[in-house]
Amino acid sequence: MAMEKVTVAGGGVLGSQIAFQSAYCGLDVTIWLRSEGSIGRTEPKLDRLLTDYLADIDAMEAALTEARETGEAVPAKVWALGIADTDDFDADACRERARHARESLKLELDLAAAVADADLVIESMAEQEEAKVEFFKRLAPLMPEKTIVVTNSSSLLPSKFTKWTGRPEKYLALHFANTIWHNNIAEVMAQDKTSPASFQAVVDFAASIRMQPLPVHKEKAGYLLNSMLIPFLFSGMDLYVNGVSDPESIDTAWVRGTGAPKGPFQILDTVGLVTALNIVEPYCKVPGFLAPYNFKGIRQMLKEKVDAGETGKAAGQGFYRY
Amino acid sequence: MAMEKVTVAGGGVLGSQIAFQSAYCGLDVTIWLRSEGSIGRTEPKLDRLLTDYLADIDAMEAALTEARETGEAVPAKVWALGIADTDDFDADACRERARHARESLKLELDLAAAVADADLVIESMAEQEEAKVEFFKRLAPLMPEKTIVVTNSSSLLPSKFTKWTGRPEKYLALHFANTIWHNNIAEVMAQDKTSPASFQAVVDFAASIRMQPLPVHKEKAGYLLNSMLIPFLFSGMDLYVNGVSDPESIDTAWVRGTGAPKGPFQILDTVGLVTALNIVEPYCKVPGFLAPYNFKGIRQMLKEKVDAGETGKAAGQGFYRY
Repeated sequence: MAMEKVTVAGGGVLGSQIAFQSAYCGLDVTIWLRSEGSIGRTEPKLDRLLTDYLADIDAMEAALTEARETGEAVPAKVWALGIADTDDFDADACRERARHARESLKLELDLAAAVADADLVIESMAEQEEAKVEFFKRLAPLMPEKTIVVTNSSSLLPSKFTKWTGRPEKYLALHFANTIWHNNIAEVMAQDKTSPASFQAVVDFAASIRMQPLPVHKEKAGYLLNSMLIPFLFSGMDLYVNGVSDPESIDTAWVRGTGAPKGPFQILDTVGLVTALNIVEPYCKVPGFLAPYNFKGIRQMLKEKVDAGETGKAAGQGFYRY
Repeated sequence: MAMEKVTVAGGGVLGSQIAFQSAYCGLDVTIWLRSEGSIGRTEPKLDRLLTDYLADIDAMEAALTEARETGEAVPAKVWALGIADTDDFDADACRERARHARESLKLELDLAAAVADADLVIESMAEQEEAKVEFFKRLAPLMPEKTIVVTNSSSLLPSKFTKWTGRPEKYLALHFANTIWHNNIAEVMAQDKTSPASFQAVVDFAASIRMQPLPVHKEKAGYLLNSMLIPFLFSGMDLYVNGVSDPESIDTAWVRGTGAPKGPFQILDTVGLVTALNIVEPYCKVPGFLAPYNFKGIRQMLKEKVDAGETGKAAGQGFYRY
């Protein structure tokens, strides 16, 4: 079953992007919002997304023209794979699709109306467990039988909400990265009651909105990326707090040794140290989990920097000065 | 104290490179070898290094000329920072230095003669504990008092050999990556008796042969790079052996999510699965170490691939086909 009618619940940073990208790919998209106030905050986000898409299409057109003249490859950074492939790029058609996406997006305050004929409902609300439970409770009786429902939650496991959806076999997680038209990966994660047919339908939906679907067959905190990124960041911080070396040398070892663009401390500065501190907290409470790392030392180090206002790149000072 | 006379013990892949690079940077370098047979194996390695340096200097000259014409940056891959900086590159002078390095390198079978006036002895022999102990025992009484001695060991902790060196405060580790004139990082690692002066002298020596010195103030198995790389590879393999996802999706999540050139399975294929299996073994024997990872599952998975001859990129088949 192809997904044609999509309802995104929540108009935050990612909710807006998911809705815009789905509409850009020709789907019939409704954003459900809680209040008139939410509409006032979401409309400008959608306007801004149209501006961003158009600016990126311009940049892609210019880069492709230059690449064809010089015979060089188009810089990967410029190209938004969510917008088009390099070998099948019609800038005017893309502009038209982006404008149509903005016009076609429907904002709706009535949840029953928003999901009345939805093939897919994408929950993309704030990361608050109780608010999500309330939402799924309200949503469950309103959806038609056909509807598949996914959560975009990053840190709360989807199984926390299964029973409130009323349709365990048609419920799973679909996790996007920020700026989805550039970072076009979508982790599709089952919980233990998800049916193979629903899983496949969501994989197909992700591909249909130009995402690279990454199948995650079992529930896993952190999906794929964070399951690797978090232990990696811990291993770097552990070297530092144990006095083995300094952030700059540790970053240099990683960057020079693996060819990666950033080492752990450069990534932490970008993510922000407040987020890092929130991630470390639970590990401090589970004795023996990831046993060799000095989590208490890591927490203390991060806390001192956060308390000093050195919270990362956005603050102008983290492990590095910006 | 500047290091002028350097003795490299061992003419293997890295020993040859360290000796050649040190001579390239103008130092007085002797390679100590165990036998006439070793001389026969080492001479061609040094000839080959001269050829490689000269070819790289040609490539750098061509790339720099092109970059100056187009206004583009020189591709990082082409540039060997161990040979020269981009903004201070005299190709002819570099060629002359490389030829002089090859001519000036002394090969010596007599250990006493080889180290009689050495400022620095670099142990770069096979990774066999007993052979290294024997070497340090022989070496200890032959060195003048001024000599600092370092081990290039990757997997054996330097403290295993401290007592055999006869000079704990002047003994530490200096760890290079392969193709040191390109991968010009050098991890300088103290053991707990190393004096600050010796540590600094080796940091300065590394810089003097155009390496980026990475200080490792405390003994740490894996130095900096492998202390991060190994847990990272485990986290990726753990996702696979627990049925969470497949190697290709896991690699895609990492590459797309972080901008790195390779994901864990692409790195494992390059390193080789036999090496990976050897690294996993000890973790299987320490219950609770890096507790959350399924080491037995990881070992079993690697063993099956190794037994099937699918040992990585060099074999044409690892997690991917080449």
